Amino acid sequence: MFKHDKQLLKDVRVDGPNPNYANMLQEQLGGPQGELKAAMQYLSQSYRIKDPRIKDMFLDIASEELSHMEMVATLVNLLNGHQVDAYNTTVGNIEASVLTGLTPMLANASGYPFTAAYVNETGDLAADILSDIAAEQRAKVVYQYLYRQINDSGVREAIDFLLNREEAHNTLFRMAFNMLEETGSLKDWGVTEDSKQYFDLSTPGKFFDANNLTNPKPPKFNIPNQQNTQQPAGIRQ
Amino acid sequence: MFKHDKQLLKDVRVDGPNPNYANMLQEQLGGPQGELKAAMQYLSQSYRIKDPRIKDMFLDIASEELSHMEMVATLVNLLNGHQVDAYNTTVGNIEASVLTGLTPMLANASGYPFTAAYVNETGDLAADILSDIAAEQRAKVVYQYLYRQINDSGVREAIDFLLNREEAHNTLFRMAFNMLEETGSLKDWGVTEDSKQYFDLSTPGKFFDANNLTNPKPPKFNIPNQQNTQQPAGIRQ
Amino acid sequence: MFKHDKQLLKDVRVDGPNPNYANMLQEQLGGPQGELKAAMQYLSQSYRIKDPRIKDMFLDIASEELSHMEMVATLVNLLNGHQVDAYNTTVGNIEASVLTGLTPMLANASGYPFTAAYVNETGDLAADILSDIAAEQRAKVVYQYLYRQINDSGVREAIDFLLNREEAHNTLFRMAFNMLEETGSLKDWGVTEDSKQYFDLSTPGKFFDANNLTNPKPPKFNIPNQQNTQQPAGIRQ
Amino acid sequence: MFKHDKQLLKDVRVDGPNPNYANMLQEQLGGPQGELKAAMQYLSQSYRIKDPRIKDMFLDIASEELSHMEMVATLVNLLNGHQVDAYNTTVGNIEASVLTGLTPMLANASGYPFTAAYVNETGDLAADILSDIAAEQRAKVVYQYLYRQINDSGVREAIDFLLNREEAHNTLFRMAFNMLEETGSLKDWGVTEDSKQYFDLSTPGKFFDANNLTNPKPPKFNIPNQQNTQQPAGIRQ
Amino acid sequence: MFKHDKQLLKDVRVDGPNPNYANMLQEQLGGPQGELKAAMQYLSQSYRIKDPRIKDMFLDIASEELSHMEMVATLVNLLNGHQVDAYNTTVGNIEASVLTGLTPMLANASGYPFTAAYVNETGDLAADILSDIAAEQRAKVVYQYLYRQINDSGVREAIDFLLNREEAHNTLFRMAFNMLEETGSLKDWGVTEDSKQYFDLSTPGKFFDANNLTNPKPPKFNIPNQQNTQQPAGIRQ
Amino acid sequence: MFKHDKQLLKDVRVDGPNPNYANMLQEQLGGPQGELKAAMQYLSQSYRIKDPRIKDMFLDIASEELSHMEMVATLVNLLNGHQVDAYNTTVGNIEASVLTGLTPMLANASGYPFTAAYVNETGDLAADILSDIAAEQRAKVVYQYLYRQINDSGVREAIDFLLNREEAHNTLFRMAFNMLEETGSLKDWGVTEDSKQYFDLSTPGKFFDANNLTNPKPPKFNIPNQQNTQQPAGIRQ
Repeated sequence: MFKHDKQLLKDVRVDGPNPNYANMLQEQLGGPQGELKAAMQYLSQSYRIKDPRIKDMFLDIASEELSHMEMVATLVNLLNGHQVDAYNTTVGNIEASVLTGLTPMLANASGYPFTAAYVNETGDLAADILSDIAAEQRAKVVYQYLYRQINDSGVREAIDFLLNREEAHNTLFRMAFNMLEETGSLKDWGVTEDSKQYFDLSTPGKFFDANNLTNPKPPKFNIPNQQNTQQPAGIRQ
Repeated sequence: MFKHDKQLLKDVRVDGPNPNYANMLQEQLGGPQGELKAAMQYLSQSYRIKDPRIKDMFLDIASEELSHMEMVATLVNLLNGHQVDAYNTTVGNIEASVLTGLTPMLANASGYPFTAAYVNETGDLAADILSDIAAEQRAKVVYQYLYRQINDSGVREAIDFLLNREEAHNTLFRMAFNMLEETGSLKDWGVTEDSKQYFDLSTPGKFFDANNLTNPKPPKFNIPNQQNTQQPAGIRQ
Repeated sequence: MFKHDKQLLKDVRVDGPNPNYANMLQEQLGGPQGELKAAMQYLSQSYRIKDPRIKDMFLDIASEELSHMEMVATLVNLLNGHQVDAYNTTVGNIEASVLTGLTPMLANASGYPFTAAYVNETGDLAADILSDIAAEQRAKVVYQYLYRQINDSGVREAIDFLLNREEAHNTLFRMAFNMLEETGSLKDWGVTEDSKQYFDLSTPGKFFDANNLTNPKPPKFNIPNQQNTQQPAGIRQ
Repeated sequence: MFKHDKQLLKDVRVDGPNPNYANMLQEQLGGPQGELKAAMQYLSQSYRIKDPRIKDMFLDIASEELSHMEMVATLVNLLNGHQVDAYNTTVGNIEASVLTGLTPMLANASGYPFTAAYVNETGDLAADILSDIAAEQRAKVVYQYLYRQINDSGVREAIDFLLNREEAHNTLFRMAFNMLEETGSLKDWGVTEDSKQYFDLSTPGKFFDANNLTNPKPPKFNIPNQQNTQQPAGIRQ
Repeated sequence: MFKHDKQLLKDVRVDGPNPNYANMLQEQLGGPQGELKAAMQYLSQSYRIKDPRIKDMFLDIASEELSHMEMVATLVNLLNGHQVDAYNTTVGNIEASVLTGLTPMLANASGYPFTAAYVNETGDLAADILSDIAAEQRAKVVYQYLYRQINDSGVREAIDFLLNREEAHNTLFRMAFNMLEETGSLKDWGVTEDSKQYFDLSTPGKFFDANNLTNPKPPKFNIPNQQNTQQPAGIRQ
Repeated sequence: MFKHDKQLLKDVRVDGPNPNYANMLQEQLGGPQGELKAAMQYLSQSYRIKDPRIKDMFLDIASEELSHMEMVATLVNLLNGHQVDAYNTTVGNIEASVLTGLTPMLANASGYPFTAAYVNETGDLAADILSDIAAEQRAKVVYQYLYRQINDSGVREAIDFLLNREEAHNTLFRMAFNMLEETGSLKDWGVTEDSKQYFDLSTPGKFFDANNLTNPKPPKFNIPNQQNTQQPAGIRQ
């Protein structure tokens, strides 16, 4: 069950209305690396997770991403201002002026509506977590681009928070990944000859070769300075 | 420049026509974890890569994925048989019978056309490679599902090959990832307080906590049994 | 902020796995009249609502729809069973077997991914609430179709609950609608000649005519047996 | 059968070419509240309607919406002018300059192609008419936004006409709705306990409560000043 | 302006309900080679056509395609029968049972909603007419596939009519094409060296070569047995 | 099998970065008349082609279109420059600044992602080749529009080359078309009365009439100045 608290996860403010900034920020509301995508991906994946520790972590993060989405939408809403005027929007889409009456839209910066085609779920925990680590890294990158281009102290404060939270999630997903045994798609990794070949199909240039693939191992993250990666604190199961 | 050799990367055959198997296999032709997606993702990402070793590797793999796509399409074509008859297709979409005249279609098993919304590219090498590692893992999982359900010795041979190649690519992408310095989205990782918090938003249950996040590090893969991960063999740049 | 309670809004169970039923039920997970759509529509609209009573109601209902989505996804997950086998799915899409590993998918019964193109938001409260009343009515209809076709006592219990909740929301949205003054798109209704014409463009047949349009009024719902429609109980603003 | 008369339903003109205005107006050609959507929704719904009076009304309005689409497309065509030049289009999409050679496009203001995902049809007359009333209200809102932003006397004249016609349709759909008996999705309304609950899931704030839901009734419109709502004039069936 | 006549362009009937046939036929209602696509393509293109003879022909054919769409939808409606039951639909999508309540849907056989991405329009008359000739040929092919697979005498009668009408349109479009002077995209055809090269990029095999390209000419159709191709009868401009 | 040569099919350069030009050129990377579409259409169609001469020609052209795509992507990449800044993009989409980090995107000028809904394939060779002739003509038109609007000598040089290559392909496809016998969708052309009617559904105006349709023939191209159209040089089969 989801419950809503009218208090935002972290309060947001803007220096002033700026429909162009609103448009850019839309990218993280309804785009492929956005908050709705993240929330839906983790929530969807959680249904098949058996380990209660990892399932809980997925649901914690999914809920947080929904709360991020609310923060981003609130920022877009403030930036959209009070007057429909397509001419105020010199970059990106103009749907706020001609369709939504300034309401934040579940679309990216160019007006392409959110699609669940962005959401990756496989039923295989290793593949799902790797997808999530990658998703968090991409979300961080998009926030970095937005930070550079949006010269509004309120928006930057929020982006700084959101960007750092993606890092925290990234760390958590890696910890969860390292807890996996060699099951599912991690089983029998690299035991065939085919998995040890290098096909040099683009010429000229051959920098990697088959010697590097002699003893392929399934992916595992190196988290040297962290304690407890095999035994997460607080397991009370 | 792309050149085509009428010889397949690896020859394929089927036990006999089976439109249902054709349909299932379509998933890897035009679906989100399919070969066209993989080829387009790596090719698109390659344009911004500066390190000639990694760029070459991306183009080698992109070309191989195009060649995989051709193998999968050839299998679908053989499995589609010789007679348009929607009643032969009891699972999945029926476009082969009512639209494409049995020609392999750039769509998934349910007839949803390929969309570039599946393709992730960020201009940030760390994020792109993590996306590719995840994509390879997901592709492997889908091939595992198909292998279990398609009882045709020819198709299984091909899937076995393709699945193992995804593992090889996975290994290569991880090696490339470990060559990255802490630049781009890997810079200044986990230096803020926000990046070390755990928000326990789903209750009951709290298995991970903030202690685990004390010294967050950017992602790095553990590839213990491989030689030369920092100095790939064969660099002749 | 959204918080998650691992307790479902109402517990669900199924008589047993049935991938076909899972497929049908997907319609209300990721389809145009589904729970994700409802949640996203009401949440998005809420950002521009000024009346705190109506805004609160929208957020109450949006949260409930998210919780409905979780119930539906849990049912789909149970119905999907434990074995990927496309042949088990004789109706609808086969993505659960070839892509998601039985994980519930944000797509409709035919595998078309959820799109925010389903979500209507206009920034005009009258138009938004009428959209919501219509959405609730359509959601009820789809549940009625599913109820008739899914012969599983657990699923039927859940559908019965969900269907009745859509009625409750429908009533609430109508009460909120009747609270609106004649502002926004309700202002100056029917004052021109053009708004009182009937164009008889399909022949033969003319059953409605201009006399019926003499004194057009903006929409208002007739809720005769309800007390307090103008003064909702519990206003403590 | 559809027949075409080269005479527009109402003649249109523009003050002069203005690609930005053309772009904005595209929203009502190929967008979610646009004329093609309206025509397709009413036409599609009409196939299952049994009451000849209501069926006739749906076909009258569907034909009119097609004729509206032609008016809007003619306006877009005039506004697009005579020279492909993307730099003339500072707001919205640039497809007219780089793809369609200034031909009106079945897309919204941001270039997103029309999709039938916008079209709602349920086979249930009550749900369909409520959808249509909401659709007309949203169309009116979008025209109001466009009117404010497009400072061209010809376009405004046309919008004024179109906007008022949406009001006329709205009135007609409400009259048709009130003719429905309590069948289909209107049957057995609000007879369960579940349909009379209020779930207060967003806190703080509780303005509506269960007392308001004591005697829920199916929707009915209040059309006090209209004669003949139960007996539409001109029924000659 | 479009007017509707309740008389179909040609009456249709079916031997009996058959949801599978309904599904297959959907391909020509909302698919890429379907009637809605054809109508929208010709109508959209017509706005930029200056030659009144060709413009009239486009509008004649566009209106006919709309009327075809109505015939196809009526057939689908009859074939859908009277009972929502997804199990009746063993091939193709099940939206009629779980979403539209048996109402014909603007989607293809697999449930993919109609998209204007199917519609080609360029503002260049030569390119547009070639697109239309190709579209008519494809539509004919799809109807041939459907004819073979749908064993219902009523549907076959209708398909036979529709298929032959596509041929008539095809002939007309070719006559119109031959009326074009060498303007627009037909101007200065094949005057550069680049337009006379053959690049042999797929090996082995080289069957066409540059000698064939020595004197390239713009496309022109050979219509030997037709009178009056340069001077269409009935020109009264 | 596809092999990649790091040498472009033809070298490209730009006068300097220009994100607006980059955006316009995107149309031919991921749009409906773009290079990816062309490559995928010809490759997909090739699987069902039996005549080795025509199959080879399709694969030669498909490989060339992939190589064109690489040229266009390289141009977009150069034009995108070195700095993410949405304000540099006053026309078209801003995804390069907020999502892809200046990497070329498989989307059109307005940011709509490439979809395989653009790809036409029917399994009927006549319909497929007519589709390809039309596609080449449309691609030429789009390049002509881009040439006029992009004032960069490097880009114009490349467009000039690409545009002329489309002409060469167009000629080749017509030669291949003329090699077809009257089979498949060309068989029994115009033998019914229905295929010889003209329906005058748009009034006023009747410029074409039934007399023109007396002896309809299947399409055939007139290539008067070309030698060897029935016997392509170099057939060594």
